[in-house]
Amino acid sequence: MSAEGNLAEKLAQWGLALPAAAEPKGAYRPLTTVGNLIYASGHLPIDAAGTLAVGRLGDSMDAAAGYQAARLAGLGLLATLRKELGTLDRVRRVVKVWGAVCCTPEFTQQPAVLNGCSELFVEVFGRESGIAARSAVGASALPLGAAVEVEAIFEID
Amino acid sequence: MSAEGNLAEKLAQWGLALPAAAEPKGAYRPLTTVGNLIYASGHLPIDAAGTLAVGRLGDSMDAAAGYQAARLAGLGLLATLRKELGTLDRVRRVVKVWGAVCCTPEFTQQPAVLNGCSELFVEVFGRESGIAARSAVGASALPLGAAVEVEAIFEID
Amino acid sequence: MSAEGNLAEKLAQWGLALPAAAEPKGAYRPLTTVGNLIYASGHLPIDAAGTLAVGRLGDSMDAAAGYQAARLAGLGLLATLRKELGTLDRVRRVVKVWGAVCCTPEFTQQPAVLNGCSELFVEVFGRESGIAARSAVGASALPLGAAVEVEAIFEID
Repeated sequence: MSAEGNLAEKLAQWGLALPAAAEPKGAYRPLTTVGNLIYASGHLPIDAAGTLAVGRLGDSMDAAAGYQAARLAGLGLLATLRKELGTLDRVRRVVKVWGAVCCTPEFTQQPAVLNGCSELFVEVFGRESGIAARSAVGASALPLGAAVEVEAIFEID
Repeated sequence: MSAEGNLAEKLAQWGLALPAAAEPKGAYRPLTTVGNLIYASGHLPIDAAGTLAVGRLGDSMDAAAGYQAARLAGLGLLATLRKELGTLDRVRRVVKVWGAVCCTPEFTQQPAVLNGCSELFVEVFGRESGIAARSAVGASALPLGAAVEVEAIFEID
Repeated sequence: MSAEGNLAEKLAQWGLALPAAAEPKGAYRPLTTVGNLIYASGHLPIDAAGTLAVGRLGDSMDAAAGYQAARLAGLGLLATLRKELGTLDRVRRVVKVWGAVCCTPEFTQQPAVLNGCSELFVEVFGRESGIAARSAVGASALPLGAAVEVEAIFEID
């Protein structure tokens, strides 16, 4: 099944709609394209209703909720890609994911949180194309109090 | 007007000189070039007199001062580019900006701070070429106590 | 001498073996390749016996120990590269290094810590190829309590 088909099926399973693609809120763009690479801006976890997932892992949010937040950030990245490309089927591969988790100094499960985004990409693009290189780090603070922020590089046809 | 002309005009308006391009202080370079892409190292906010903007947003520094610090980091990136290329007119576009803001856990205006760098790039390169993909995150600590650190990818002719 | 030869000599001097290349622990890969570029995931400091260097700079770990931890992360990156490429001699150049240091808010020597990785790359690849663009930042927390996390971009033949 194509990435578009996978995404439609998953969204239906979850009872979710893809969030609206993020609008530039300042002097930046949601993505830039150089040759076959798309550089996507850091995306925050915003659901289809427009609500931001605010929280701090290890304090007001646990790893399971953080996983859901990272999936929302991933859905936001997909929405941005689809708005740009018209269809996710032009995405050849996820090259690189970088994610920051707003957390306490004691929290050490950043990879488990970021899996919420990474596993979404596997569901949508398949294992070969969806599994990317990745870094997951903790941050003392993120924009607007967001629980996670995820940026990514994609290769397109 | 060219990027060089825009920069010269802006510096005159601000009564500023471009800072000296950063010298490598350790086992790294200010930038590397691969094909048409320049990868610039994380730049700290250093003014033309060589003074580092030290501070923590949400504590010893407010968002307006942070904005100025991010602009200084951006000027440092421009100085590094100009030293490498001879002229900013060879910069086709800013592809990606990544910035960390030294801040308290409660500070959530990292994007407003990073706009200091991003809006400088718009003034110098114009909207089409100067607005890039971007991530803005908080950091508990930065080198030498700097208020911000900004790295970027540029596309050149 | 080739990168492989340099590495073998250094490991012998240090009485060290190259650590085993990191196995994917989740929905990510140790690296992805796009054209001539390798994007390596964030690597943690794990020694040849499999022990993770856990700690916080400015508290439970000093800069000298942090330097050693960053060198371990660098060795892990080399192990990942060698597993992928068969030999380090296919590495043309280190393009970019990004490293986060788990530290207290007062710690400001992130560059000195990251030199542990950067100077390893110089020893193995030589100055011309081994010195890259770099960013070094502080993080309030890193995966598994690791003292440092380092990702990198390499250009290959």
